[in-house]
Amino acid sequence: MKTENLRNLMNSGKMVKVMGAHNGLSAKLAENAGFDAIWASGFEIAATHVVPDANILTMTENLNVAHSINKSVSVPVICDCDSGYGDINNIAHMIKEYESMGISGVCIEDKPFPKLNSFLGEGQKLEDIEVFSEKIRVAQETKKNKNMVVIARIEAFIAGQGLSEVLKRAYAYKEAGADALLIHSKKEDVSEIYEFCNSFNENLPIVVVPTTYPNINLEILKAHGVRLVIYANHGIRSSVNAMKETFENIIKNGNTTNVEGTISSMEEIFRLQGTGKLRKPSYNLQK
Amino acid sequence: MKTENLRNLMNSGKMVKVMGAHNGLSAKLAENAGFDAIWASGFEIAATHVVPDANILTMTENLNVAHSINKSVSVPVICDCDSGYGDINNIAHMIKEYESMGISGVCIEDKPFPKLNSFLGEGQKLEDIEVFSEKIRVAQETKKNKNMVVIARIEAFIAGQGLSEVLKRAYAYKEAGADALLIHSKKEDVSEIYEFCNSFNENLPIVVVPTTYPNINLEILKAHGVRLVIYANHGIRSSVNAMKETFENIIKNGNTTNVEGTISSMEEIFRLQGTGKLRKPSYNLQK
Amino acid sequence: MKTENLRNLMNSGKMVKVMGAHNGLSAKLAENAGFDAIWASGFEIAATHVVPDANILTMTENLNVAHSINKSVSVPVICDCDSGYGDINNIAHMIKEYESMGISGVCIEDKPFPKLNSFLGEGQKLEDIEVFSEKIRVAQETKKNKNMVVIARIEAFIAGQGLSEVLKRAYAYKEAGADALLIHSKKEDVSEIYEFCNSFNENLPIVVVPTTYPNINLEILKAHGVRLVIYANHGIRSSVNAMKETFENIIKNGNTTNVEGTISSMEEIFRLQGTGKLRKPSYNLQK
Amino acid sequence: MKTENLRNLMNSGKMVKVMGAHNGLSAKLAENAGFDAIWASGFEIAATHVVPDANILTMTENLNVAHSINKSVSVPVICDCDSGYGDINNIAHMIKEYESMGISGVCIEDKPFPKLNSFLGEGQKLEDIEVFSEKIRVAQETKKNKNMVVIARIEAFIAGQGLSEVLKRAYAYKEAGADALLIHSKKEDVSEIYEFCNSFNENLPIVVVPTTYPNINLEILKAHGVRLVIYANHGIRSSVNAMKETFENIIKNGNTTNVEGTISSMEEIFRLQGTGKLRKPSYNLQK
Repeated sequence: MKTENLRNLMNSGKMVKVMGAHNGLSAKLAENAGFDAIWASGFEIAATHVVPDANILTMTENLNVAHSINKSVSVPVICDCDSGYGDINNIAHMIKEYESMGISGVCIEDKPFPKLNSFLGEGQKLEDIEVFSEKIRVAQETKKNKNMVVIARIEAFIAGQGLSEVLKRAYAYKEAGADALLIHSKKEDVSEIYEFCNSFNENLPIVVVPTTYPNINLEILKAHGVRLVIYANHGIRSSVNAMKETFENIIKNGNTTNVEGTISSMEEIFRLQGTGKLRKPSYNLQK
Repeated sequence: MKTENLRNLMNSGKMVKVMGAHNGLSAKLAENAGFDAIWASGFEIAATHVVPDANILTMTENLNVAHSINKSVSVPVICDCDSGYGDINNIAHMIKEYESMGISGVCIEDKPFPKLNSFLGEGQKLEDIEVFSEKIRVAQETKKNKNMVVIARIEAFIAGQGLSEVLKRAYAYKEAGADALLIHSKKEDVSEIYEFCNSFNENLPIVVVPTTYPNINLEILKAHGVRLVIYANHGIRSSVNAMKETFENIIKNGNTTNVEGTISSMEEIFRLQGTGKLRKPSYNLQK
Repeated sequence: MKTENLRNLMNSGKMVKVMGAHNGLSAKLAENAGFDAIWASGFEIAATHVVPDANILTMTENLNVAHSINKSVSVPVICDCDSGYGDINNIAHMIKEYESMGISGVCIEDKPFPKLNSFLGEGQKLEDIEVFSEKIRVAQETKKNKNMVVIARIEAFIAGQGLSEVLKRAYAYKEAGADALLIHSKKEDVSEIYEFCNSFNENLPIVVVPTTYPNINLEILKAHGVRLVIYANHGIRSSVNAMKETFENIIKNGNTTNVEGTISSMEEIFRLQGTGKLRKPSYNLQK
Repeated sequence: MKTENLRNLMNSGKMVKVMGAHNGLSAKLAENAGFDAIWASGFEIAATHVVPDANILTMTENLNVAHSINKSVSVPVICDCDSGYGDINNIAHMIKEYESMGISGVCIEDKPFPKLNSFLGEGQKLEDIEVFSEKIRVAQETKKNKNMVVIARIEAFIAGQGLSEVLKRAYAYKEAGADALLIHSKKEDVSEIYEFCNSFNENLPIVVVPTTYPNINLEILKAHGVRLVIYANHGIRSSVNAMKETFENIIKNGNTTNVEGTISSMEEIFRLQGTGKLRKPSYNLQK
């Protein structure tokens, strides 16, 4: 159902707005704000565990969070699966596991395992095109729900390669069966993305992650063929900044008087938790 | 080690400041801000899973978060264990499990299982004194590390009972072996706490949770015998408010330009994750 | 799909043979032997964790095993959910969780939480009829897949009550919406079961667990209206006996020469694991 | 404590007998039979999940089983950690995780990730010596409990290499800090092991896994410098054979009459679970 919704969204011609999340609550807040789907962000989840975004957490740990997110929202969830946690057999297992949890989409990137966050380090290594294409093929062959979305993420710009390498990979991954292409860029403007869009002659949804180039315009992106935009890390970044300020204020004052006005009320949290939907036993009423 | 530290802190005569957390990252931020210990908050953890604070999450789920918190900080962790997840056999098992994860302290409250958050509903039911005293006795008999702290939380004020019931329970739980007493109150001022402190003639550390009475003064509390103050929910409440604002802003603008200045930078998150401590292989340097 | 299969099986008029399991492998062996469905046995799962069958393990721990079982077999899985892990809110949550993992059926028993294994102790306490009926009602209201099976397990015979109490409960639980009734007995013959079947005037599938009365005849049971027979603990009991003998033999001899003929070969285990289905990368062939 | 015991055992001059386990119960049975330590076997654990022994299960899944085993026995537990789940940063994380669970020893093998079971396939790939030596170094630098044992497993014989390669690796891994060397062989006799022992001129405990060469003599092995013998898979193999026979018999007969004499009694399982140690509430006695 959700999975069908994701596929329909991707093909709707509208820009699909996806917010990163690190737990059920951040996902719920994103849904409430109006986002169309949730990105179970590897970076955010690693951050909540205070470990680097470098495949330190296992697939199990990421999947458990993704499942918790999926249970918390009615919009579809797309999972950041890094480079797929190993080889083609790991990919096949991964697809079965994510599908058994009702996840609507997965995204795998063309870097070897273990991967490093795209914004860290120079000269990141890319996976061999043939090897990565086979991962996509295996993912697609393994899934039972044909609507499940497999996004191929191209890290060639991140690795310092030029447009021709990105295009070569884009055509190969499309050929291998990718449902969409995530073109990642760490430039401070959207130029690389447009460059790619202008050269890519295939009808496949393009996905972008505007972390380093915040100043985007959704209309122009759409006109270039971009169909999904993933705001991949702003939840955790908001959260950290707010907690830091609150905690420092409480330590300074010894009490919470000064922060009460800047934080959500207990009632708001209770409401988000669905406390009002708790059932009261009918039999008590009779006794 | 951490467990010994917690016991020493409790007996140091200083006011121990404890911040609530719901994952490793919020705990790490609390440690960085200067808190002495972390409260693995049942309310916060339930909130991140978008379920009510009513023993919907299992001990396993709470323990896993507590373990993740414990690995993320060097200060001790005290776990909110609700009413102990069942009867005395569940308590004994719980103590073994928390001890096997290196948790320094647990807090159990004198309500039946399943419990409901203290700020919800009128006329909350209390556990029988004898039954709850046995829980404390069993907890203390089960632990192998004698420094592990078992806090008995008295919910009689919450349940609308008066001082005499609270005192009766306080003496009984001390007799049963409690290492400290958490006197919970939902008044909007600290009066009930002082009432209790003025009447309780035993030398046992008192713990308070000033959620509804933020306007406390640590010096005066200390003079009354309070040794630990737990700010139990301000992390999640900061976090929710900040994410809500950020998400609404992004939906409105279609990009993150306006929020970039109000959220932590990617670099700050990377630093918190310990990215700089990732090892680089030495053998690469030689090739 | 599996869930629909379970419902169809239950209504097929045939005797559904269900084998207890404690992990994916024991379930797979049961499927291979020809059983129609798997019972994720609370007793067996507790045994593998070396804790008593008394709600020491949490729902999370039982559910994780059930999920692993469910992924390992193509036949449906029915989960032993004890008394439902708490009150009606725990039941509602439980149903959501089990459904999110694709479990086809759950069984809950009319004892309070925490429960004790039915073959232990005299005078086991029963849950109030009204309270338990509401649990069944809530379970049925919560599930989204209408084929999911909710079995009500009646422990009145176990608790030393007579036929009239069992019948009273049977009619109440049917009224509350139970899809089937498990009549549990610890007699050494099947007499209590027949007594019940002969007196119960409703068309609802009856489920039995012949642990203490092994000498059953499936044809006669079927003629009495029994539709499912659960062999609930023979896997773990076979397993324990075999491992004990093997381990003692190896300790005595210092080597495994004497046991090699009485245990499965490595090849058999490899086969069960699906080792032959591991994919070989096609790109290696080209290089 | 257990960890100190393992180190003392290894240095005692006696042959340390280690039995493979796949859950707490099989470990408990091994302890009861007289084994000195438990091998949390990757092969056995994968088998219980019905997936190949090829790093399909994640570190989290293996660690959770190891933790459950560790809680079930009083003897030390050594974990089969395959090739360490990735690179040196994964190794460092792994050591922290296993140490946080109180695991006494880990074993890592010199194959790349993902690994394949040693008895499968020809021409298994070996990890570069330098790369693997650094893994051992990092493991040793990371652990805080100096008694924790890090075993380096040499797969060169398995990969079809000769004695000189095995020796080269043995000296390198000793130099890198390995606490013991596991020399793996898939020959049908112990000759390769003796060949190695006769040529290796260092005083480091040798570990063997006599799966394909069952006909060993512990005295002769000890005289060659072998200090630990791991019977790595006989528990699961006994278990599978026994369950298969039991299940087929029950399917054939429709009841369990014929198998009751060949399986453990319910009482035996209750005893293993520690049912007798369940506490009875003292307050009931008074009411």
